[in-house]
Amino acid sequence: MPAKRSVAALIFPGFELLDLYGPLEMLGMREDDFALQLVSQGQREVKSSAGPAALADRTLTDGSDYDILLIPGGMGTRREYKNSQLLAWIGDTARRADHVATVCTGSVLLAATGLIDGHRATTNKNAFGWVESTRPAVLWQRRARWVEDGKFLTSSGVSAGIDMSLCLISRLLGRDAAIETARWAEYRWHEDSTDDPFA
Amino acid sequence: MPAKRSVAALIFPGFELLDLYGPLEMLGMREDDFALQLVSQGQREVKSSAGPAALADRTLTDGSDYDILLIPGGMGTRREYKNSQLLAWIGDTARRADHVATVCTGSVLLAATGLIDGHRATTNKNAFGWVESTRPAVLWQRRARWVEDGKFLTSSGVSAGIDMSLCLISRLLGRDAAIETARWAEYRWHEDSTDDPFA
Repeated sequence: MPAKRSVAALIFPGFELLDLYGPLEMLGMREDDFALQLVSQGQREVKSSAGPAALADRTLTDGSDYDILLIPGGMGTRREYKNSQLLAWIGDTARRADHVATVCTGSVLLAATGLIDGHRATTNKNAFGWVESTRPAVLWQRRARWVEDGKFLTSSGVSAGIDMSLCLISRLLGRDAAIETARWAEYRWHEDSTDDPFA
Repeated sequence: MPAKRSVAALIFPGFELLDLYGPLEMLGMREDDFALQLVSQGQREVKSSAGPAALADRTLTDGSDYDILLIPGGMGTRREYKNSQLLAWIGDTARRADHVATVCTGSVLLAATGLIDGHRATTNKNAFGWVESTRPAVLWQRRARWVEDGKFLTSSGVSAGIDMSLCLISRLLGRDAAIETARWAEYRWHEDSTDDPFA
């Protein structure tokens, strides 16, 4: 059996619950394929925007490499996109990762590293204008459930991260594995990334 | 403005991530309407079935009342349905609550209290036989995205909890509020509880 892929899911104060746990549910059900780690800047307990707190498994400074980097959105991104230590870690980790996935305004943090300048990406519809203004050099896509550009996958708001993570499973393990995963979760996968009723 | 409704979301070792955080995302986005609390039997740190841990805000023994009780499923239910202290708390809290919502095999824990004997309820499709066997006196429904029977709402597997929680928002705050909430999350609400492609 091939080694599990290691997944770093970034958490910061004010992360959005479903941005994080939607994709982690889909990856986490495939326990033979993925090993999940929550990574914070240093805090052990990290409160979501809705209140409930997550517990970090690791911190930025432990030097770990990851195969996949997942960045959720949430109100906290409006503070963190100016956090130079966090952005440096995202840049380093994203450069070394095979895949980088963002949900909702998580794309703001990835964009702030400069790594997706000139790349296509998307984000939450309600925050689109703000996101665009933070990094105009990214080719922001208004109509997309999610966008794939090389190793970068960026999704629209909140629940779109679930569809994107199934796409990632499909790329890594095949489409049948993604369909199986969605069925385990009794989830209707919206497999067409251009089908976006919220645009 | 009316007081917020208090929500107790039960967590136990081996809870399923999306069972918990899908509904909490939907309720939590309406921060003026709902106050969320994670409740554990006593542990402060509670690991999900996929690994990532949640932090309990409260414990069973603090005597709090709640307007809404949410019970997720997950592999841990196969241990907890014999946990008499936990079941006693679920029974007491459910009796006093205005609404009780379960996701996936969370219904096993509610059923074990005897409170839904003779009531209609549903659960995860993959675990249906086991769930039925734990409490045959419940009228288990094989085809349902979720089931409403009085103040009890029970949903099918994992992602069905999101649809059920939007139904709860609709009952409490009106259908427009539920539609608005789904739109904020860019989620396509499956509003028909009988539309169940996983049956």
